[in-house]
Amino acid sequence: MNSQGYESVDIQRLNQNTTVEQSDFVVQEYPIALVYNGISHAVMMATPADIAVFAKGFSLSEGILSNLKELYSLEIQETELGIQVEMTISARAFMALKQHRRMMIGRTGCGVCGIESLQQLHLDLPQITTQLSEIWLTQIPKAISQLNIRQKITQVTGGAHAAAWVEGGEIIALFEDVGRHNALDKLLGFISENQYDVSLGFVVMTSRASYELIRKCAQLNIGLLACISAPTSMAINMAKQSGLTLASFCRGDGFVLYT
Amino acid sequence: MNSQGYESVDIQRLNQNTTVEQSDFVVQEYPIALVYNGISHAVMMATPADIAVFAKGFSLSEGILSNLKELYSLEIQETELGIQVEMTISARAFMALKQHRRMMIGRTGCGVCGIESLQQLHLDLPQITTQLSEIWLTQIPKAISQLNIRQKITQVTGGAHAAAWVEGGEIIALFEDVGRHNALDKLLGFISENQYDVSLGFVVMTSRASYELIRKCAQLNIGLLACISAPTSMAINMAKQSGLTLASFCRGDGFVLYT
Repeated sequence: MNSQGYESVDIQRLNQNTTVEQSDFVVQEYPIALVYNGISHAVMMATPADIAVFAKGFSLSEGILSNLKELYSLEIQETELGIQVEMTISARAFMALKQHRRMMIGRTGCGVCGIESLQQLHLDLPQITTQLSEIWLTQIPKAISQLNIRQKITQVTGGAHAAAWVEGGEIIALFEDVGRHNALDKLLGFISENQYDVSLGFVVMTSRASYELIRKCAQLNIGLLACISAPTSMAINMAKQSGLTLASFCRGDGFVLYT
Repeated sequence: MNSQGYESVDIQRLNQNTTVEQSDFVVQEYPIALVYNGISHAVMMATPADIAVFAKGFSLSEGILSNLKELYSLEIQETELGIQVEMTISARAFMALKQHRRMMIGRTGCGVCGIESLQQLHLDLPQITTQLSEIWLTQIPKAISQLNIRQKITQVTGGAHAAAWVEGGEIIALFEDVGRHNALDKLLGFISENQYDVSLGFVVMTSRASYELIRKCAQLNIGLLACISAPTSMAINMAKQSGLTLASFCRGDGFVLYT
C-alpha cells in the first residue's frame, strides 16, 4: 500500500441553520512499523504516501544508517495490523542499532517520545559543518511563496505538513505528511536517495520549528531550516548547539533569525 | 519550576533589505519526567506551566489512574537533567501500571510513539456514555470566538496550542502547551481536580484533530471535541469507534461533523 495520502469520508457541513450532507477528503494516518533485519524497531503514525523514502529518511535522521549504502533491501508489506517496512541493513549498522537499543529503550521518531527517564535523554547533537550561504536568506521569501501550489495533499484535505528542499531559490522537492517530522524524514530520504549535495541548499517547512526537526536536520548536516511558524525554546537551543541556522515566522517578505 | 510558559530570546528580524536586532518571546519546551512510586514511566516534552494539572491529566487520560483519589501525593522537582514529577499512587493503580508496562513496553503520551511493533498497537478505545447535547453544536462558534483572548502564551509567542472546556457556550477553563496532547492533558487534569461534570460541556482545541486527542477525550468520557483545523482519517475512525462526536474546521459560523 502506498496511497496518494488522503481518502474520502462522509461529512455534515453545518453553517448557522443549514446542514448539508457531503463527502470530503481527509489526510490518511496509519501505523507504519519499521523493521530492521527482522527486529521491529518503531511504529510511526504517518501518511502512507512515499513510504520508501520515509523509511530511508527515518533510518538516516535517527542515526540508524550513516548512509544509504548500508541499506541492502527495503520491502513494504501490508499486514492485517498495518503497514510494515522490512529493511535489511549492514552488520555494522545493525550491531550499532542493537547497542543503541540497549542504551535507550524505545526511543523513536521524535527523539524523546518513548524514553522513560531523564537519564535516557541524550540530546548530544551532531555538529553541522555545512557553511551557511548568505544568499539562501534572500531566497527564503520566494521559496515560501512556492509552497502552496506544491502541497497536493493539503490542497484537498487542509491537513498536512510539508517539507521542501530549496536550491537556487526554487523548491526542487516537496513531501507531505500528517506529522511534521515524518514530512521531513520523507524529504531527507529523497535527498539522500538522489545524492543531493546538502551544501547547495536548505529546508523549508510549513510547520512550527520544533526540536525534533533540528535534530533530524543536524543529523544530515543541513545548514539552514526555515519554518513558517514559531520556534520553541528547545529548538532554538538545539539549533545553537549544533550550528544550524534557524529562521522562523517566514511570511511574506520577512522572517526572524534565532541563531 | 513552574513558569509562565515562555522566555525571552535575542532575534534578528529581516525584512527585504533591513535587519533589526530585537528580543522576542518564545514558548518554552522542557523534558518533564513522570515518575510513579519511584519508577520513571515517561518523559514528555512540554511547556512547564501548570505542571501539576498536566501530570494529573496525563495520568488519567493514559489510564494510569481511574480517578484522582488514587493519587496520594504529587511533588515537582527540578533536577539538573530536567523537571521530574514524583507521584505516589494507589497499590491498585501501580500494580496495573506495572502489568501494562510488561505488556506494552514504552508506550507513552501520544499513544503510539514508543511502541516497537504493530502487535503492541492496542487501540481498543473506551466507549463514551456521555450523551451529546444538541445545543452544544450551536455553541461551538461562540466558544471558538472566545479562544484568542484567552490564549496568553500564544499572544506573546504565536506558538502554543490551547485546549478549552466549554459550558453554557462559555469557555470556563483554558490551558496551553507547545504540544496539543499536553494542552489537552492540562485541561483534563484541571477538570478532574475541580470535579467538573463532563456531561455538562465539551472540549474545544485550536489544533488539528489527531487520534491521540480522541483517545484522551474518550478515556475521560467526553462527548464532543471541536477542533479549529482538519482531522486525520484515524481520528475519524477512532471517534466513530468510541462514540465521540468530532467537529473540525470550526471557523466563523460553520464547522464540519465527521461522526
